[in-house]
Amino acid sequence: MKMWDGRFSKGTDALMEAFNNSLPVDRTLIKEDIAGSVAWANALAKAGVLTVEERDKIVGGLKSILDDYNNDRISFLPSDEDIHMAVERLLIERIGAAGEKLHTGRSRNDQVITDTRLYTLGALDGVAECLLELQKAVVNRAKSDLRVIVPGYTHLQQAQPVLLSHYWMSLFSILEREKSRVVHAKKSADILPLGSGAVAGSGFCVDRDAIAAELGFSSVSTNSMDMVASRDFVIEALSVFASVGVHLSRYAEDLIIWSSREFGFVELDDAWSTGSSMMPQKKNPDSLELIRGKSGRLIGNHVRAATTLKGLGLTYYKDLQEDKEPLFDSVLTVGMILKVFANVIATLKVREDRVKQGLDPFLLATDMADYLVRKGMPFRQAHKVVGRLVGYCAESNTALTDVSINKLREFSEMFGDDVTDLYSWERAVNGRAVKGGTSLESVEAQIAGAEGVLEQR
Amino acid sequence: MKMWDGRFSKGTDALMEAFNNSLPVDRTLIKEDIAGSVAWANALAKAGVLTVEERDKIVGGLKSILDDYNNDRISFLPSDEDIHMAVERLLIERIGAAGEKLHTGRSRNDQVITDTRLYTLGALDGVAECLLELQKAVVNRAKSDLRVIVPGYTHLQQAQPVLLSHYWMSLFSILEREKSRVVHAKKSADILPLGSGAVAGSGFCVDRDAIAAELGFSSVSTNSMDMVASRDFVIEALSVFASVGVHLSRYAEDLIIWSSREFGFVELDDAWSTGSSMMPQKKNPDSLELIRGKSGRLIGNHVRAATTLKGLGLTYYKDLQEDKEPLFDSVLTVGMILKVFANVIATLKVREDRVKQGLDPFLLATDMADYLVRKGMPFRQAHKVVGRLVGYCAESNTALTDVSINKLREFSEMFGDDVTDLYSWERAVNGRAVKGGTSLESVEAQIAGAEGVLEQR
Amino acid sequence: MKMWDGRFSKGTDALMEAFNNSLPVDRTLIKEDIAGSVAWANALAKAGVLTVEERDKIVGGLKSILDDYNNDRISFLPSDEDIHMAVERLLIERIGAAGEKLHTGRSRNDQVITDTRLYTLGALDGVAECLLELQKAVVNRAKSDLRVIVPGYTHLQQAQPVLLSHYWMSLFSILEREKSRVVHAKKSADILPLGSGAVAGSGFCVDRDAIAAELGFSSVSTNSMDMVASRDFVIEALSVFASVGVHLSRYAEDLIIWSSREFGFVELDDAWSTGSSMMPQKKNPDSLELIRGKSGRLIGNHVRAATTLKGLGLTYYKDLQEDKEPLFDSVLTVGMILKVFANVIATLKVREDRVKQGLDPFLLATDMADYLVRKGMPFRQAHKVVGRLVGYCAESNTALTDVSINKLREFSEMFGDDVTDLYSWERAVNGRAVKGGTSLESVEAQIAGAEGVLEQR
Amino acid sequence: MKMWDGRFSKGTDALMEAFNNSLPVDRTLIKEDIAGSVAWANALAKAGVLTVEERDKIVGGLKSILDDYNNDRISFLPSDEDIHMAVERLLIERIGAAGEKLHTGRSRNDQVITDTRLYTLGALDGVAECLLELQKAVVNRAKSDLRVIVPGYTHLQQAQPVLLSHYWMSLFSILEREKSRVVHAKKSADILPLGSGAVAGSGFCVDRDAIAAELGFSSVSTNSMDMVASRDFVIEALSVFASVGVHLSRYAEDLIIWSSREFGFVELDDAWSTGSSMMPQKKNPDSLELIRGKSGRLIGNHVRAATTLKGLGLTYYKDLQEDKEPLFDSVLTVGMILKVFANVIATLKVREDRVKQGLDPFLLATDMADYLVRKGMPFRQAHKVVGRLVGYCAESNTALTDVSINKLREFSEMFGDDVTDLYSWERAVNGRAVKGGTSLESVEAQIAGAEGVLEQR
Repeated sequence: MKMWDGRFSKGTDALMEAFNNSLPVDRTLIKEDIAGSVAWANALAKAGVLTVEERDKIVGGLKSILDDYNNDRISFLPSDEDIHMAVERLLIERIGAAGEKLHTGRSRNDQVITDTRLYTLGALDGVAECLLELQKAVVNRAKSDLRVIVPGYTHLQQAQPVLLSHYWMSLFSILEREKSRVVHAKKSADILPLGSGAVAGSGFCVDRDAIAAELGFSSVSTNSMDMVASRDFVIEALSVFASVGVHLSRYAEDLIIWSSREFGFVELDDAWSTGSSMMPQKKNPDSLELIRGKSGRLIGNHVRAATTLKGLGLTYYKDLQEDKEPLFDSVLTVGMILKVFANVIATLKVREDRVKQGLDPFLLATDMADYLVRKGMPFRQAHKVVGRLVGYCAESNTALTDVSINKLREFSEMFGDDVTDLYSWERAVNGRAVKGGTSLESVEAQIAGAEGVLEQR
Repeated sequence: MKMWDGRFSKGTDALMEAFNNSLPVDRTLIKEDIAGSVAWANALAKAGVLTVEERDKIVGGLKSILDDYNNDRISFLPSDEDIHMAVERLLIERIGAAGEKLHTGRSRNDQVITDTRLYTLGALDGVAECLLELQKAVVNRAKSDLRVIVPGYTHLQQAQPVLLSHYWMSLFSILEREKSRVVHAKKSADILPLGSGAVAGSGFCVDRDAIAAELGFSSVSTNSMDMVASRDFVIEALSVFASVGVHLSRYAEDLIIWSSREFGFVELDDAWSTGSSMMPQKKNPDSLELIRGKSGRLIGNHVRAATTLKGLGLTYYKDLQEDKEPLFDSVLTVGMILKVFANVIATLKVREDRVKQGLDPFLLATDMADYLVRKGMPFRQAHKVVGRLVGYCAESNTALTDVSINKLREFSEMFGDDVTDLYSWERAVNGRAVKGGTSLESVEAQIAGAEGVLEQR
Repeated sequence: MKMWDGRFSKGTDALMEAFNNSLPVDRTLIKEDIAGSVAWANALAKAGVLTVEERDKIVGGLKSILDDYNNDRISFLPSDEDIHMAVERLLIERIGAAGEKLHTGRSRNDQVITDTRLYTLGALDGVAECLLELQKAVVNRAKSDLRVIVPGYTHLQQAQPVLLSHYWMSLFSILEREKSRVVHAKKSADILPLGSGAVAGSGFCVDRDAIAAELGFSSVSTNSMDMVASRDFVIEALSVFASVGVHLSRYAEDLIIWSSREFGFVELDDAWSTGSSMMPQKKNPDSLELIRGKSGRLIGNHVRAATTLKGLGLTYYKDLQEDKEPLFDSVLTVGMILKVFANVIATLKVREDRVKQGLDPFLLATDMADYLVRKGMPFRQAHKVVGRLVGYCAESNTALTDVSINKLREFSEMFGDDVTDLYSWERAVNGRAVKGGTSLESVEAQIAGAEGVLEQR
Repeated sequence: MKMWDGRFSKGTDALMEAFNNSLPVDRTLIKEDIAGSVAWANALAKAGVLTVEERDKIVGGLKSILDDYNNDRISFLPSDEDIHMAVERLLIERIGAAGEKLHTGRSRNDQVITDTRLYTLGALDGVAECLLELQKAVVNRAKSDLRVIVPGYTHLQQAQPVLLSHYWMSLFSILEREKSRVVHAKKSADILPLGSGAVAGSGFCVDRDAIAAELGFSSVSTNSMDMVASRDFVIEALSVFASVGVHLSRYAEDLIIWSSREFGFVELDDAWSTGSSMMPQKKNPDSLELIRGKSGRLIGNHVRAATTLKGLGLTYYKDLQEDKEPLFDSVLTVGMILKVFANVIATLKVREDRVKQGLDPFLLATDMADYLVRKGMPFRQAHKVVGRLVGYCAESNTALTDVSINKLREFSEMFGDDVTDLYSWERAVNGRAVKGGTSLESVEAQIAGAEGVLEQR
């Protein structure tokens, strides 16, 4: 029988019991559930609803349940609908009547959302930590690849030479913004719901500020209906996780392409690659492919929760039970991809010889246009001139840097002997000395700034 | 060590092993995997690659593994990356060298997609069966509620009276289309991939038609690259499941609203309801709420798989491993919601007294406009006349059917004494005798047609 | 001919031109594009790349283009690929060679993202303003409905009585969190990209801090590759808009249900309703239905942008062009639904008579259980006792408040004559005096707090 | 004033009018709307509701409106809510009272869904045609690249050599399945709704079979509530378009990678590429990038429509108005990407020299393992042997085909002099002669089969 079935004349159908049962999912919340119940017992005692003895029995009972759970000594029953009812049942079995008093003035509606907010706060801390660890790996990578020059791509076509360290530091910047989003998602989750009751607020005047302090919430909700109905912090967290997933997928894509034989810029460590069941020569960047692929999962989980919320009236409906699986799944997933990515780049081998071979003289075309600009030609004309020159090179299969001065002058008389000064990758890179540019000095400044951020913590 | 690590100089990192491991998910496929391997062993034997003795050992070994699995006698290892490698490892442990020959001419790339297609075919059959069972429940419901007249709603405003059986039969029609989609999804899945190898086709000339016949596929793939790369049948199946979920969510919504005290048209059986942990009077339609809520999950699973596929080059990438969780989850979910919904409506109590009270005379407004049309007034004018009449009723708080003839004549002289003939719910309903309309005859024809469909099978 | 076609030997196909052309969409950015170009011209002049005269010609030319655009005096050409090239073409046509110098050291890659960030900052301000206006409407509504008691629902079943003002204030709380998300989304957008060039940083050392100051950005990007590649602020903004849409859809759902004849709690003003082309009596809450329906659009727009970004390597790819339509569409949509919703609730008529009739004595069941708790009965037992009592009432069709004391005592001897003190909606409401509860005092405190928030600004 | 405002005491607010107005979107349906109205007028005349003269005036009036629309001679008004009301207004203005009779027995609810189904049928035919045209381009490409051998990739690592024509034919296979989905989506759309009225069926007994015949529908709906409520065919069509988009995005990805300097396998025609505003050397595959990027739009449109439908009760709600924009947008998008892709591959230049250089001897590793299998070694051992050999080659920087026989024998004594017979790309390709394999014969059979399919039509 259920704890709520006083008014029912018939039991729940077995299929309904299975359909309704959320215990396999929400048992993840047992630690938070018990912390919440301990705080509630303390609050009830303070409010005079429980005696000190009752409270102590309850708190002791709850702690023994958690202890037993952690040691795999708990058996759940099919009739345990969810972790809340399971814990209450176990408590009553252990301590009797005092246990029957725990749920006074409380509802599963405020209980579940208290648990979920506590869980989310912890999970976001974990994700923030993973983001930070990845940032460290990125900075290390940038330092060790500091002066390696690679083609910078747009449209996967070689565009301009850049420092590989500059490429890595772009990831640092993105992660910095993701961390800020995680901090905001924490702020959204950091509100105590307990005391909101089923919908109208608890019928017992407990000290909610004290509960918040005990559980570590920074603020107390101001409206009970909002609190039992809202899952906005869940979809916010899921959107942040999706954002992290999408951005990692982009770097994973690059590294997968760079791992191809044709690019050959990097090679994954054996420890982060796998082979083929059929083809003996294969070494595949599965780690990166999974990171890329799981971004679909993270986007899908956000859709799942947002769509379930859509068009749902206030306040609590059982539809809301569907919030936890996507949340738990995305938390696990995002932690995993961040950790794996940090390891992949930490152990990555950059093949400097291949990178160097890969630089195409056409990468200097913009510098040649800028050269003409500096000689006084309007940029739009300079672009045309160099464009025609590139067309000539492509047709005649000549490297841009191999065209003779005489030939260059056929395209523009402004070309002088000093044009060959441009033919240096280092010069090209260091010519982008603007803030945020790829010059060595700029990248060193980025790294110094990043180390400042990492130390602050 | 892994079966593919000949060329590797270092083992896989433990975190990578955990990240890469799909066994907790793809063990679901063990039956299909072993069926596929048995068929492959038969094909290899037929092609002269295996002796009859080797084949028999393999087939016997595979069957013993499945038998042991079904009886919970299998222990997997952390190094078992997936169900395919786990089964091959177990086989080799059991039968030795012959087991090492099974993977000849085959790749996990064609193996996994063979398993997934076999699974999907079975799953779609299961879903089709659930759709059919729900259709039966719908027809039964329509028959028992045949003459009950309820308000037909648009915009949740009472529009025109309809038979409750007509409402139920609308669900039958939708489900008929969903069944057709399931049949098409089966057609898309019903192609044998085995023999496609890793990407280029098997290096051994096996008889793929014989494999298809043994495994029950209707056709054999014509292009190996397509086969190992494509997951189109997965996203098709997921889109069909999302469609089913969305449509059930709409009927669930209606029944949740109808279960409210304010509507009071229906009452769920206790066996399909649940209570509140706090409020003793509550009886909540949780079954319907979960059905509605899970449509978010089904849409999300489709997004998840489609997004993972997006922008993925050919052929196999590890990203594709992400296809199975959403597929398995949606299959379970859609089966569950169909079964629960069938039970909910089969046990639903229709409160005819409340329904009858609920009928608002304004439901007859269109009939009054049509009356004027039949007297010769253009419809657009008739609509205005009755609109003004309704405005008068609303303002003076008069039921439309209580307005005197004299008063009616103030709105139009065309109103005659015969207007009161309209004041009958049955007449209003039976006046919609057009094909597909709500007249009793029409609904009886719908039911007869439905029973024909159900019998055909 | 195109401005970039120097190296091309053939023109663009007409179909390709149509496919590639983003002008119909990105012309929305003309104001931002011209502001960015003016700032760029100033920076180039400061860096000595342009003379003062050239700069003045450019700035004057740009302003005349904007002025003409605002007065509908601009004709675009099919070959104008996007707003950036269109403006540059127009400028060169108007001022000649100086115009050909504007694009020096700049790329469309940093230009478009500067425009988009500027646009987003403005758009987020607009949305914040709409959120604030809706909050004002909510507070006004709460003040005018302050003491109206309505059923509080869970599962659309009557749960406990609440103040209607408490219901409205729940929306205030949610909107407060949405505003905070908008502020964070602004922070994410508030970074100057200009000077990042195509990928590597501008080849000309412009003063980016001065550009930021001129355009109103609070910070300057630190990494050029990040800047031209990232659209994280777009998907963040889209996720916030989706969140706003989802939450409004929930309130819209409630009000649609409350507008039904069966609930009858509220009536929309005629100005925010529409009628039926066929049924003269219909008055439909279309405004609310559209608000609810458009949440699908807002979720879809987020999916659209996030999925397009997924798996896209660095840095710029033309895929990124797909970011603008969902952004612009969601900005328009979210502004519209906020404004319409504010109007709908400002003009809503609450039907207090119907609301009062709607209160079911079962709403007091929790109070009766709490009564027993206060007499010393453990809550879980009290819940059972009252549950059985409710079962009796339901079966015997008796109002909970009509059960005699003697009958009550059959369920528990703890019931005393003072139980009838509970039979007051006001008492029930005011009994939830906990912080965030529905008592009058609590709601007044919420309103006072809200007014403080609104005044602050 | 509106045509339905008889009962209203106040006009619609201007903001509401703008919010509610769907004319900018649904004017796309004018042709279908007028066809539907003509058929309806014919049906009303046949049913005796209209005289022949009235019908002729109506039909003539409608045709003149369409004609004027096509010649840009129609002015819409702000009060024209949608295309249906706009056409009715124009008709009444032109022909007077007869026009006021057209809407007899009809509702916008059955009218809009008739229009949308007609539109969808036409649109699906258009998409099917585009799919077919792309298939033709694919077959032509396969024929011209018939014998070109390229690396077949898994995980973007070279796996086994395949014919480029085999690669192209994989796309043919996928498109064949997409065509089948389009055919099914047509079946789902091919049901006449007209006569369903607002919800209950028309009050006038029109001959719906005749209407269906006139409009070209194959079947007539059996349930009016289903018909006015359902949009299942819309989400089915959107899911098919998303599937097409996802699959094209995968081929676009490959060709973008193949267009990179590092791969260099293909070069896009200038007519389907674009340049850079800043970098004179750039030639970017924007056409393919847009095709890839727009798959996000197509997935998002499906989410948008499905989410809007989710949880929406029966029958018509204004939320359903949101179905058209994603539908129209996806129809345009999918047509465009199919056409552009067909053009891109038709004009693509394959750089056979670069492809040939790209073939890595490791591509033959599986053949070497199979060689050992044929000599009697179990495959799993052969895989290890060759794996170690590959490891040796990688370490010693030796091509697999350059290892001496003596060295090979250190890895396995089974290696004989005949192993060098394997060292031929043609032999490797033709060794995959299994059905669906990459051998020349198999691909020729695929092409022949494809041409059969294309001719059939």
